[in-house]
Amino acid sequence: MRQVHICEVGPRDGLQNAHHLMPTEAKKRWIRALAEAGLEEIEVGSFVPPKLIPAMADTAEIVQHALTIPGIRVVALAPNVKGFQRAVEAGAHKVTFPVSASRKHSESNVRMTPEQMIGQVKACVELRDASGKPTLIEGAVSTAFGCTMQGEVPEDDVVKFATMLAEAGCDCVALADTVGYANPAQIRRVFRRVRAAIGAKLEAAHLHNTRGLGLANALAAYEEGVRHFDSSMGGLGGCPFAPGASGNVITEDLVFMFESMGVPTGIDLDKLMEARKLMVAAIPDEPVYGHMALAGVPKGFRAAA
Amino acid sequence: MRQVHICEVGPRDGLQNAHHLMPTEAKKRWIRALAEAGLEEIEVGSFVPPKLIPAMADTAEIVQHALTIPGIRVVALAPNVKGFQRAVEAGAHKVTFPVSASRKHSESNVRMTPEQMIGQVKACVELRDASGKPTLIEGAVSTAFGCTMQGEVPEDDVVKFATMLAEAGCDCVALADTVGYANPAQIRRVFRRVRAAIGAKLEAAHLHNTRGLGLANALAAYEEGVRHFDSSMGGLGGCPFAPGASGNVITEDLVFMFESMGVPTGIDLDKLMEARKLMVAAIPDEPVYGHMALAGVPKGFRAAA
Repeated sequence: MRQVHICEVGPRDGLQNAHHLMPTEAKKRWIRALAEAGLEEIEVGSFVPPKLIPAMADTAEIVQHALTIPGIRVVALAPNVKGFQRAVEAGAHKVTFPVSASRKHSESNVRMTPEQMIGQVKACVELRDASGKPTLIEGAVSTAFGCTMQGEVPEDDVVKFATMLAEAGCDCVALADTVGYANPAQIRRVFRRVRAAIGAKLEAAHLHNTRGLGLANALAAYEEGVRHFDSSMGGLGGCPFAPGASGNVITEDLVFMFESMGVPTGIDLDKLMEARKLMVAAIPDEPVYGHMALAGVPKGFRAAA
Repeated sequence: MRQVHICEVGPRDGLQNAHHLMPTEAKKRWIRALAEAGLEEIEVGSFVPPKLIPAMADTAEIVQHALTIPGIRVVALAPNVKGFQRAVEAGAHKVTFPVSASRKHSESNVRMTPEQMIGQVKACVELRDASGKPTLIEGAVSTAFGCTMQGEVPEDDVVKFATMLAEAGCDCVALADTVGYANPAQIRRVFRRVRAAIGAKLEAAHLHNTRGLGLANALAAYEEGVRHFDSSMGGLGGCPFAPGASGNVITEDLVFMFESMGVPTGIDLDKLMEARKLMVAAIPDEPVYGHMALAGVPKGFRAAA
């Protein structure tokens, strides 16, 4: 019934970049409310060193709690083999690896070249295959549309790294506009090129709304055949390079766009607003964004059948 | 060189719906700065009864000032024959008439049915033709994508009224999402239908950002061949039905979207930000919106050639 699949990344990408810590119990309630609203895939945390990112210190506990919620796929981010092992141990259904197409960003973010990072992903695929576990592995090409350090990121590099991730055995590959640099023409061009290279292994668009183009870029990706989107409730997280700008594309607005277009998301907007209230109550001083929360649905609005 | 044409409607649609009055001299400086940024068409005011909308009381003076700025087309709104006559007297290059496709909105907004309103437009075309003056006349089908009073607006009505406006002798016809109800699929469908009915007389998309879809809708319209867009600096004006939501699609973000896609607008983003500063200084307590103003352009950004 769902024609697009939305993965809520607020508990990971949002909270990881937020100014305020959400208590563990509040995270659990929020994730449960997200699932009740119909989100079938939730990126609940990140297996990074807690000293580096205290907001993610409770990820193992959050994964284990999320596994008790029926019907959702529990996703966690890992930056290396060690993080992957912790994610598998906790029971994550899917692990996503960020692989920067920008060399500068890669070295700053994970202290590895993109090629070294892809080596880590390949090692994890081998570990997974040897273990016989069904953990899904996603390779996410980050800074795929530009980088705050390097500026332009060559499209050839994006195609190359996406291809290497597919060849390394990733179950799926995502393209991420980590810093909100993408424009709709570029989205169409790069997704088309990567799809030509790796076919259906190209799955998700991970978009940010830093420059306001989040939904326009999502529309362009949709029209290029993309059916999996990452987004974050309330556009949580912002961007350290753009004070006052929202972070990921906003879940509520993305769901509204698709539903109003007649494209079913499987997500209930009213219940989504309930989940938003829980989130806001848990981090009341955090800036949140979103037009739907302010304006509500149009008179006579019908969700997609 | 310009591949899209943007008409700044902030001084009219924005200020008409703003909570704060902008002084006449500040309006003049702002309009001059907009022209210096490269805006070739500016809707500077509305010839409505000053008692109804005090913010528009100085429109004749503003039109006359704007006429002294070289290279811009000066647009004014008129709701009837009397307003048209005042606009022509002031010297406006172009007059736009709002014709609600929603019967409820039409009766509430101009106390006429859409058909009666089109009769007024036809009378103005005849006056113009008899006078031999070159004043351009635009018929704008408002609430073309939905109405806060009526809810859904039948697409057949939009096609019908657009056709009647073209037949009444309008030089161009616009479709307006007056209350921010449109979605990209609907934009494509309705623009396609109206273009099939009236061809190249269909010109501008007037979009609001109330539900955050302003840029996505602009993208959809662009991809349907629309090359004329109305927008408002800072998303000025908001919406009385959606507190906290921006008004028109935001000029700065629209320009950025097109320029980043390689579509020249003829507008200089740095100078646009200067014009924004003047606007903010003139109505400092008015809520303004826009991602570009917060985030700036991407590193290595190049405007379209």
